[in-house]
Order: sequence, then structure tokens, then C-alpha cells
Amino acid sequence: MSRATAGPEIERLISLLAKLPGLGPRSARRAVLHLLKKREALMGPLAEALADAADKIRACTTCGNLDVTDPCAICAAPGRDPSVICVVETVGDLWALERASAFRGRYHVLGGTLSALDGIRPDDLNISRLMERASGAEAKEIVLALNATVDGQTTAHYLADKLTPLGVAVTSLARGVPVGGELDYLDDGTLAAAFRSRRPA
Amino acid sequence: MSRATAGPEIERLISLLAKLPGLGPRSARRAVLHLLKKREALMGPLAEALADAADKIRACTTCGNLDVTDPCAICAAPGRDPSVICVVETVGDLWALERASAFRGRYHVLGGTLSALDGIRPDDLNISRLMERASGAEAKEIVLALNATVDGQTTAHYLADKLTPLGVAVTSLARGVPVGGELDYLDDGTLAAAFRSRRPA
Repeated sequence: MSRATAGPEIERLISLLAKLPGLGPRSARRAVLHLLKKREALMGPLAEALADAADKIRACTTCGNLDVTDPCAICAAPGRDPSVICVVETVGDLWALERASAFRGRYHVLGGTLSALDGIRPDDLNISRLMERASGAEAKEIVLALNATVDGQTTAHYLADKLTPLGVAVTSLARGVPVGGELDYLDDGTLAAAFRSRRPA
Repeated sequence: MSRATAGPEIERLISLLAKLPGLGPRSARRAVLHLLKKREALMGPLAEALADAADKIRACTTCGNLDVTDPCAICAAPGRDPSVICVVETVGDLWALERASAFRGRYHVLGGTLSALDGIRPDDLNISRLMERASGAEAKEIVLALNATVDGQTTAHYLADKLTPLGVAVTSLARGVPVGGELDYLDDGTLAAAFRSRRPA
């Protein structure tokens, strides 16, 4: 806790901004000075955008995505294939797949992974709603797009066991050499996985 | 410019946050997800604190410090010595000196440095008000606490030339080995300055 050097209004703003990931007390101070310099162009609009977002943005009750509408824009989009549901851990992962234009189906946001260490059990995740959706007449394929971490893969196995009996195809993302990846710098696990999954050139 | 993947409200928030120093588009997205998770505890209060600060905080007409009152809390504090005025480039520098509890006089914020390259001339800085204050009956010493950069030192020389004829003492911060500094890692300029200004142990 740094001693207050500016007024309480400024100190309060600094301490709130310092709670954002990626900003510490020092960068929060720099950010506040920048904001006070750009009062009209940045500080006012940011205050409004924050209040607006805090007021309007809700989790979609179908898929767990964040949007101002419920169902969210992706669940409501008529052009997207409702028969394929891509399961992701977080909304950030959903955004990453959307940025890659990798997928034109629907999503399902779990809200985390199973974790014995952190005491996160199936009931803590958005799993029962996924089971409902996977049991629906439209669902044909569930893509498990979970992180390639121990917790992510444990969760993927758990979900595959629960989903397969429902008669839907359960798939997961391919493992291999990333685009631009140099073999010499890749970890052994990725190299071994890429070798096992080799395919005709 | 990344393609919009979230709704326009979220994208707007991301693009505004990405304008803060130290945050790029990727960390702004992480910050927005964090804010949406901590809606009550962080997002709402931050929106309020920003609106409040944008509304209330002004530059002090005496010294240029940022505060909700004018004159600012430092200019108004009866316990601070009005005969010593410390000249700094920015409010961030003022905060740094206050954090160090280095000084119990008054400040004067120039708002930058002279810079031929960026076309910043004496009229663009808060210099005429400094001359007024230095000419006042109370002023005895002006401490030039400008950055040890080329522009900072050019500005310090310019100010020293203007202030000395007014009959006030003009001083500047000492140069030397920083606390915790290891000689082997210091630049030659600092070492030479520390050697020239050596003093009895």
C-alpha cells in the first residue's frame, strides 16, 4: 500500500485501476495521468462505456457468452450451424476462436475447468445446460476446444464420457506443430503428438 | 484493428482501455473479462470513480498540480514552506517526490520540457506563472527537479538563466550513485558525475 500522495479521488482511481490484470500501482498511476490529460477524448467515454457495459452485459442463459442480449448474438444468429456446439473454458477462448474465424457453429462456455486442487467440481461449471443442449434433436457434434493443460484435458475426458452416451459425435482440436513453429523450439509432448498424428503430405 | 468478435459495447470498452499506456488490445481484452467478472466490486466503482474524477479534478492555477480544489491541497497546506518552490516536469514527478517524502515546500508543474524537436517553446510551458511566483516576496529558493535527460537539462539551464536575476537561489537535484546502485552497472555519465561531486566520507 503506497502512501497517498495525490488527493483521495485520484488515489481511489489508481487503486481501482491497479486491480486490473496487467496493471500494477505504477502503471495505474501512469494510466490515471494519461486519462486526466485526455479527459474529453478518453476519460469521459471510458467512464460511460464501463457504466453502460456493467449495466447491460449479461451471460447468455443458453451458452454462457457475454452480450447485451439473451440469447446472445451468436446463439441468435440464423446463419450459424446449430448442430455443432463448441465447448470452451472461458469467454476469452470463445473470442479467440471467433477472431480466427475458425468456426461457424454455436458455443458453450463452461466457465472454467474441473480442478481437484481448486475444489472445482462438475456442479460448479455450466455442464448440466450443456447436457440439455447435447440431448436436443438439433445437436450432432460437440467439439471440445479446451486448453491443452492438465485441468483442461481432465475436463475434456470427463465431458467426453458424459456426452458420448447421448449419441452425439464428440471431437477435440487437433494437436500438432503450430503455424510458424520451429521443431527445435517445440516441447517434446507437442512433437510426439504431431508425430503420432502424422498424415499424408 | 482486430475484427469485432464480441458485441459493440464490449468492443468499444476494449478499444478505449487499449488506449491506456501499458495496455494493448490483448491485455485490454483480459481486463474487460476481469471487469465483467467483478461487476459489482470493480466495474461499477471504476466507472463512478472515472466519472467523478473527470468531473471534479482540475489543474491548480497556482502550481499546475491536479486536484479537486483550486488552489490544490499542497498549495493550500499551511504546514508547507512557501519560500521553497520545487519545479517538476509533470504531475507524475510531483507524486514521485511526495512518495519519497523528500520535500515539504511547494511545487510548480511545468507541463513538459522545452524541445526543439517537438516544437515546444517557453510559451507552451507553465513558465510565466513560475516567474510571477519566483518574483513574489515569499520566494527564496527554486529547486529545479527536472529529469536528467537532454530536454530536461536544457529546460533547467533556460530556467536558471531566467530565475537567477530575480534574486532567488536556484538549485538542482544532486547527481550521483543511486541507492543500491552497483558501480559496475552504472553508466559512465553517472559515474563521472558522482566522482566529480565526491564529498568527505
